[in-house]
Amino acid sequence: MAKLRVHNLSMSLDGFVAGADQGVDNPLGVGGEQLHDWMFATRMWGRMVGTGEGSTGLDNEFAERGEENIGAHVMGRNMFGPIRGDWGDEQWRGWWGDDPPYHHDVFVLTHHARSPIPMEGGTTFHFVTDGIEDALARATEAAGGADVRLGGGAATVRQYLRAGLVDELHVAITPVLLGRGERLFDGLDDLPAGYVCDELRGSGAVTHAVVRKR
Amino acid sequence: MAKLRVHNLSMSLDGFVAGADQGVDNPLGVGGEQLHDWMFATRMWGRMVGTGEGSTGLDNEFAERGEENIGAHVMGRNMFGPIRGDWGDEQWRGWWGDDPPYHHDVFVLTHHARSPIPMEGGTTFHFVTDGIEDALARATEAAGGADVRLGGGAATVRQYLRAGLVDELHVAITPVLLGRGERLFDGLDDLPAGYVCDELRGSGAVTHAVVRKR
Repeated sequence: MAKLRVHNLSMSLDGFVAGADQGVDNPLGVGGEQLHDWMFATRMWGRMVGTGEGSTGLDNEFAERGEENIGAHVMGRNMFGPIRGDWGDEQWRGWWGDDPPYHHDVFVLTHHARSPIPMEGGTTFHFVTDGIEDALARATEAAGGADVRLGGGAATVRQYLRAGLVDELHVAITPVLLGRGERLFDGLDDLPAGYVCDELRGSGAVTHAVVRKR
Repeated sequence: MAKLRVHNLSMSLDGFVAGADQGVDNPLGVGGEQLHDWMFATRMWGRMVGTGEGSTGLDNEFAERGEENIGAHVMGRNMFGPIRGDWGDEQWRGWWGDDPPYHHDVFVLTHHARSPIPMEGGTTFHFVTDGIEDALARATEAAGGADVRLGGGAATVRQYLRAGLVDELHVAITPVLLGRGERLFDGLDDLPAGYVCDELRGSGAVTHAVVRKR
């Protein structure tokens, strides 16, 4: 059975996965980029951006897990772009340039219909207006037996957690204080009934927590 | 200069330092006791409760830090007891029996005046109605050159953090999900301006984070 997995979701010590005031010039919000410093230092990241360099320890091990056996992505609209409401002239094609680092089908949750966008390198963005279950069903089919990775933002992850549809959630707790921003664990009162944290490992730089369905 | 230090403040992965529905039968709230499992397993705890047993690794190292060079305590009223409003018949003398584990002056923040309570073993509970600065000043004097330890609850710690009066805050992040309860990092928007997390170390059981004044 294909799983729905969240990986490399970086959280500040005070519980925020994005800073305040997210926007086109600041997609991760004020101070949000430093949440990902640990990942930028890994070999996985070096491979993705073409330097081939980076650390090979525990942080890289967790970063690499997010690449293994993934056949499709689901993400919230805010992860795809900063545009709200109608798509307008449809010039926005994601944050990632002509050849996004997915190389498979990506299903973007939105209330506004739009035709699929085939990109270079095998990525196609599909826009799903029928809700999170439909997006997951389509992604599962597209994944062809592999798992589906769930991207952000936090609101999307919370929706899937509340519905009990996430199988595995990897959170990297970072030594960062943001003060304000978007919380991951917010309004998830029933989470303990369905989920358990069964892995908590520190690398020195960050601590990796894995939450799995009971 | 004497420091104000918080130690062994255990937090769930989802950010709660006490469960919901705290009361006399459930002083740590629903599910709150499991936050402290890591500490109950340490040699420090074994010494405190008289068994002399327990682990001696990283968790114990952090637990012991909280005992070093402390000359007085400050705590919120909810940590002293479950009684709200007036003290009534004044029969309540804390959660800890006749010989509390402090052995020095303890200053309890309250809006309701009460005479000091000398206990066995050197602990005296003082009740401070003039606010957090006054409690800290009296505790600093009582500590006689040693540091002052700040106990809970979370509301008290937040008050002192907002005032910039905490020098060191040790949080133990546990692999526990509570769903509901009392958050530590809540309404602390300006925390990053004054504080930095400069230690983050995992033991396997929990992760120890230390936040210090810049």
